[in-house]
Amino acid sequence: MTGSTRTEAFDAVEVIAAKRDRHELTDPQIDWVVDAYTRGIVADEQMAALAMAILLNGMNRREISRWTNAMIDSGERMDFSSLSWATSDKHSTGGVGDKITLPLAPLVAACGVAVPQLSGRGLGHTGGTLDKLEAIPGWRAALTNDEMMAQLEDVGAVICAAGAGLAPADKKLYALRDVTGTVEAIPLIASSIMSKKIAEGTGSLVLDVKAGSGAFMKDLDQARELAETMVALGTDAGVRTVALLTDMSTPLGLTAGNACEVAESVEVLAGGGPADVVELTVALAREMLSAAGKDDKDPADVLASGAAMDVWKRMISAQGGDPDAALPTARETHVVTAPESGTLTRLDAMAVGVAAWRLGAGRSRPGEQVQAAAGVVMHAKPGDAVTAGQPLMTLHTDTPERFDRAIAALTGGYDIGAAGARTSSVVLDRIG
Amino acid sequence: MTGSTRTEAFDAVEVIAAKRDRHELTDPQIDWVVDAYTRGIVADEQMAALAMAILLNGMNRREISRWTNAMIDSGERMDFSSLSWATSDKHSTGGVGDKITLPLAPLVAACGVAVPQLSGRGLGHTGGTLDKLEAIPGWRAALTNDEMMAQLEDVGAVICAAGAGLAPADKKLYALRDVTGTVEAIPLIASSIMSKKIAEGTGSLVLDVKAGSGAFMKDLDQARELAETMVALGTDAGVRTVALLTDMSTPLGLTAGNACEVAESVEVLAGGGPADVVELTVALAREMLSAAGKDDKDPADVLASGAAMDVWKRMISAQGGDPDAALPTARETHVVTAPESGTLTRLDAMAVGVAAWRLGAGRSRPGEQVQAAAGVVMHAKPGDAVTAGQPLMTLHTDTPERFDRAIAALTGGYDIGAAGARTSSVVLDRIG
Repeated sequence: MTGSTRTEAFDAVEVIAAKRDRHELTDPQIDWVVDAYTRGIVADEQMAALAMAILLNGMNRREISRWTNAMIDSGERMDFSSLSWATSDKHSTGGVGDKITLPLAPLVAACGVAVPQLSGRGLGHTGGTLDKLEAIPGWRAALTNDEMMAQLEDVGAVICAAGAGLAPADKKLYALRDVTGTVEAIPLIASSIMSKKIAEGTGSLVLDVKAGSGAFMKDLDQARELAETMVALGTDAGVRTVALLTDMSTPLGLTAGNACEVAESVEVLAGGGPADVVELTVALAREMLSAAGKDDKDPADVLASGAAMDVWKRMISAQGGDPDAALPTARETHVVTAPESGTLTRLDAMAVGVAAWRLGAGRSRPGEQVQAAAGVVMHAKPGDAVTAGQPLMTLHTDTPERFDRAIAALTGGYDIGAAGARTSSVVLDRIG
Repeated sequence: MTGSTRTEAFDAVEVIAAKRDRHELTDPQIDWVVDAYTRGIVADEQMAALAMAILLNGMNRREISRWTNAMIDSGERMDFSSLSWATSDKHSTGGVGDKITLPLAPLVAACGVAVPQLSGRGLGHTGGTLDKLEAIPGWRAALTNDEMMAQLEDVGAVICAAGAGLAPADKKLYALRDVTGTVEAIPLIASSIMSKKIAEGTGSLVLDVKAGSGAFMKDLDQARELAETMVALGTDAGVRTVALLTDMSTPLGLTAGNACEVAESVEVLAGGGPADVVELTVALAREMLSAAGKDDKDPADVLASGAAMDVWKRMISAQGGDPDAALPTARETHVVTAPESGTLTRLDAMAVGVAAWRLGAGRSRPGEQVQAAAGVVMHAKPGDAVTAGQPLMTLHTDTPERFDRAIAALTGGYDIGAAGARTSSVVLDRIG
C-alpha cells in the first residue's frame, strides 16, 4: 500500500497494525522491530503504540520467546563456563522489605554454588538491592566483567550493577514503558527480566514471583501467569528455571529501607532474624542448589554453621565495603503506636513501602539520591498481639518534614482486631 | 502512588492507564491531555500509547464529544455570522475519483447557500481537492481569513487550504497517528474531522462517508458507525449535521487524477459528465441546502441552467486561476485493453487509486510534489459491455518508468464476466 522506497525489511506501521489487529507477529517482524528500535529506526512513539497493542492483545509463547531472544541479541552475552563453580542466580519481581538477596547469595555460595547477581536500583515503593548495599560504608556496586569473574571464582558470590552491554534493547524499552503506561504487560515484563538473566549467562535461575498488595502483581493468578511465562522462556533458552510464588501482602521481615534491611540481613546470617525472611532465604537457596544440580548440603545447616556469614564478609570486603563498620542511622525518628489492644490482623505491604519511599528510602525518578538510613522498622507482624499505646513502627529519616506524608501513607494500612490471624507460609506455590 | 512534585493537573501515565484499563476518561482528564499534548508536556510516545488504547478500548459519546471540544479549544474558531449568506459545508472521508467538491461548491452557492470549503491535500491512494484545483493554471490554495470572507460574500463559494490556526492539536495528533498505526480508530477519526469542521464555523454540515475497497472504511457497518458518531458530534456542538453513506467500491466517475478530474467536473457543470458524479453532486447539494434551511431551489434545475458554471468561473478567477485555460496534459500515455469480451462486472476503486498514485497523481509523504496531468481515465464502468481488445483505461504520466508499477496495481483489479452487473445508486443510506 505504500509507494515509498524501503531500505528496511519492514515498515513499523505494518508491524504495529499486525499486533493491533490481533495477528501473531512473525519471527522476522520481531527480530526487525527490536533491532530497528535499538538502532533508532523505529521511533519511541511507534514502539509505544506497539507496546500498548501487545499489552492489550497479548503475545503467544513463540512470540515472547523470539522477542526475548531479539533483546538478548541486541547486546553482549556473558559466559561463566570458565568458572570452577556451577552457577545459579535468583530474580525477585520486587516487593517491600525484600532483602533476601543479601543473605541468600552468600548462603548459596557457602553451599558450593556461585551466585552472579546483577542487581538494580529501586524505583517507587520497591527498594533496590544496590541501594541497600550502598548503605555499607565503602561498598561499591560497579565492577568490570573481569573483577566480577575474579570475585566469583574467589568468593563464590557477587552482587553488582548490571553493565550497559546486556540487552540494551531492554534498557531502552523499559524506560519507554515506564512513561507510557505499558509496564503492566506480562509478555513485556517476562521478556525484560529473562533477556537480562539469559544474557547474563547463569547456568540456572530461580524466580521469586511475588503476589499481593506490595507486589507488582496484586493478583495470584496474574503472578502465576508471569511465573509460568518466565519459566517457559528460561526453558526455551536452555536455562534450568524454577519459580516460587511468594506472598507480598505484608512486608518481608521487620524492616523496609536501606541500612535497616542490611542490619536485618546480617541478623539472619548470624542465625537470627525474622522467621519469614529465614524461611524464604532457605527455600530459595534449596531451589538454587537443586537447579544447579548440587543439593548435597542443607542450606539451613550451612546458615546455622556461620559459613554464610564468612562468605558475606568476604563478598562485602571484595567490593570495598567494611562489613564490621557501623551502619548509618537517621537523624530523626517518629514512633507510630497501636491505637487499641488486640491482634494485628493486617499490615499492608504497599502502605509500608510507600511510607519508606516517602521517608527517603526510595526514589521517584531514576538517578535520584536515596537516604541510606531512611525507612520503617516494624515492631509487630500480622498475628502478633499488640497493646494500645505500644510502638507499632518506628519511622526513620534525615528530613523530618517527610514524616507527615509517610504517616498519611500508613493511614488505613493496618488493622487491629479481636480474632487471632493465622500465620501462613511465605511460599505460596512452586512452578517448574 | 508517586512521590514526585506535580505542577500539572494530571500525570500522563495515569490517563493512559485509565483508558488502558477500560475506564472512561473524565472531562478534566480529556481537557488536560489534549492541551498538554499541544503544549508538548505530554510526549509523542505517551500520546501514541493513549491513541492505541483508545483504538482498542474505545470511547463513549461523551468522551468523543469532549475530546473534539478540547481539540477545537486548542486553536482559533472562525465565524461566518457576519455574512449575508447561510453557510453549509461538505466533508468526504475520501475516495478514488472523488471530485465532488469541485462541482458541488459552486452549485450550492448558485442555489443561495455559501460554501466555505477548507480542504486538504491527498496522501496515498486518495486524491486531495487542493491538488486537483492546482492543476488549473494560476490557481492558488492559500487565502487569508479576510480574503476568504470577502470571496464568500462576493462569490458564495471558496475552496482553500485550512490555516494552521484551526485545531492545532488535531494537526499534531494526526501526524502522530499516521506513523503509529493508530489512524483506524473511529473516535479519533470522528473527532479529527469534526474538530476542524466545527472550528471552521460552518452553520451546517453534510458528511459523505464512503464505504468500500477504495474508502478508508471498507465495511458498511464501520462506515455507519463513523457517520453516526460524527452526526452526534455535530449535533452536540450545535451544527446541523447529516451524513450520506456512499459507495466507494468502484471509482466515482471516469477519472482518477488531478487535471483529468477538473475536466470531468467542468463537464458536470456544463450539464454532462458521468451519471454517478451528477447523482452524488445533486444529492449532496440537496442535503446542504436542506441543512442550511434553504430548499426553495432544486439543484438539478440550477445545474441545468448553467448558473453553477458561472459561479465556478468566478470562484476559480477569484483565486488567480484561469477557468478557460487549457489543462496540462501528460507526456506519456498507456492504454489498458480488455482481455476478453463480456460485461465489466467489477472495477476496483483501490486498484485504480493505487495506479493513479503510482503514476504520480498522489504522494507517499506530506509535502511531496504531485503531477498535475498524471492519472487514470476509464473508458468503461461496471455494468458496461466491453469487447476484447477495446481500451478499458488510459494511464497518464510524465514519467513513463512508472507505468509498470501502475499496471501491476491494476492486476486483478477488474473482472469481465457473462452476467450483466446491476448498476446501483451511489448513495447507500442517509443518517441524521
